[in-house]
Amino acid sequence: MARRKKVYEGKAKILYEGPEPGTLVQYFKDDATAFNAEKRATIEGKGVLNNRLSEFFMSGLNAIGVPTHFIRRLNMREQLIRAVEIIPLEVVVRNVAAGSISKRLGIEEGTALPRPIVEFYFKNDELGDPLVSEEHIIAFGWATQQDLDDMVSLALRVNDFLSGLMLGVGIKLVDFKIEIGRIWDGDYMRLIVADEISPDSCRLWDIETGKKLDKDVFRRDLGNLADAYTEVARRLGVMPGPGTGVTKPTLIN
Amino acid sequence: MARRKKVYEGKAKILYEGPEPGTLVQYFKDDATAFNAEKRATIEGKGVLNNRLSEFFMSGLNAIGVPTHFIRRLNMREQLIRAVEIIPLEVVVRNVAAGSISKRLGIEEGTALPRPIVEFYFKNDELGDPLVSEEHIIAFGWATQQDLDDMVSLALRVNDFLSGLMLGVGIKLVDFKIEIGRIWDGDYMRLIVADEISPDSCRLWDIETGKKLDKDVFRRDLGNLADAYTEVARRLGVMPGPGTGVTKPTLIN
Repeated sequence: MARRKKVYEGKAKILYEGPEPGTLVQYFKDDATAFNAEKRATIEGKGVLNNRLSEFFMSGLNAIGVPTHFIRRLNMREQLIRAVEIIPLEVVVRNVAAGSISKRLGIEEGTALPRPIVEFYFKNDELGDPLVSEEHIIAFGWATQQDLDDMVSLALRVNDFLSGLMLGVGIKLVDFKIEIGRIWDGDYMRLIVADEISPDSCRLWDIETGKKLDKDVFRRDLGNLADAYTEVARRLGVMPGPGTGVTKPTLIN
Repeated sequence: MARRKKVYEGKAKILYEGPEPGTLVQYFKDDATAFNAEKRATIEGKGVLNNRLSEFFMSGLNAIGVPTHFIRRLNMREQLIRAVEIIPLEVVVRNVAAGSISKRLGIEEGTALPRPIVEFYFKNDELGDPLVSEEHIIAFGWATQQDLDDMVSLALRVNDFLSGLMLGVGIKLVDFKIEIGRIWDGDYMRLIVADEISPDSCRLWDIETGKKLDKDVFRRDLGNLADAYTEVARRLGVMPGPGTGVTKPTLIN
């Protein structure tokens, strides 16, 4: 893997040039950040877990016809993805009030929302990723009305799939964030799910106990983040865990 | 006016029961507040000016078929209005970036927006009137999609009218805020412009000099607020001013 070209480095991932045109290699780091990177740590094994989990969620979505950037996993920390033109918006779907919506609108955490709510945040660290409305997005040309309609459809399909998947293993999907990119097949442009889907970008609560199994464990100092993510992976059958005869997940890269 | 019942008291206005059902008396105070009432002052004459200016703008809107709550002015500080059920949203139309949008989205003040942008803020002092998107509004039942479409139409008509009116007297309409209420004619519900339209709720810049003629004069300590509002009233011919032979506006209640 020497000499390959780094295309982009973010807080939790690095993108390298891929083996053929239109592809990239996505590398998952162990770095955890929160509150717009004001809080930072290295969580050993997080990158391995998120690489596996994002593979699991994205290939599941591909299989039901929700297009994603995921092609195949390459190794413990890397996956091959389609290169996309990222739309500079974070698309958030919320089923239950938690985090910023609770603060902004004064809704107690844990309150079921009357319906899934799709929100858009302008991807800009300097501005703290501010909430924006469709008006802003269209007026400033970040996406068209058609893009927005397609993004809402994609986001709601992802919500349906992930909600079901999580429910099956006793987890409530509280909310999640995705990013969406444009790809061209000749002149035909379409939108696909990009970035990652992992406990870094979801809120996941145990249905029985309410125990948090996502990045809030790190944000709010609630315990060991890798343990929480391993629990999610174990329940989903993505990685061996306690009770399967293998006591330690295979986190060696 | 003794013994009449106070229905509501806000930061800049008081509402009393009106002389007949479905009406209210709106009293304009001299109180000025900014930054969610963290900054406060009493500006002598402001109530009189805003009563006159809101009358002028609202009756102009009524005349072009944009329905408003305004019925008639009663005296220097009071006007008769239709009672409405206020939708708990501040509707903001922006033509030029200034104030919160400049901060939130990193757009230099004075930058012309690519098109008028309509924003909604949830009316809640405790939460600091947070920006909300149509998703939030509909999901929480603050308004329906039909209401929102009607509100955007109303807001853009108000913008067209006020932009023209201001341009005619050498003033740029940078942005403004309105509130909208529901009234019922039998079973038929419709939306009308309510609250007030005044330099308290608009940003108005002199086209030549950029001089601010609105509440920013108070927010940012740029001079005497009553002088700025008097200048707007004078240009619009709403009140006598310098050059008309009357040097002092008639601000005696």
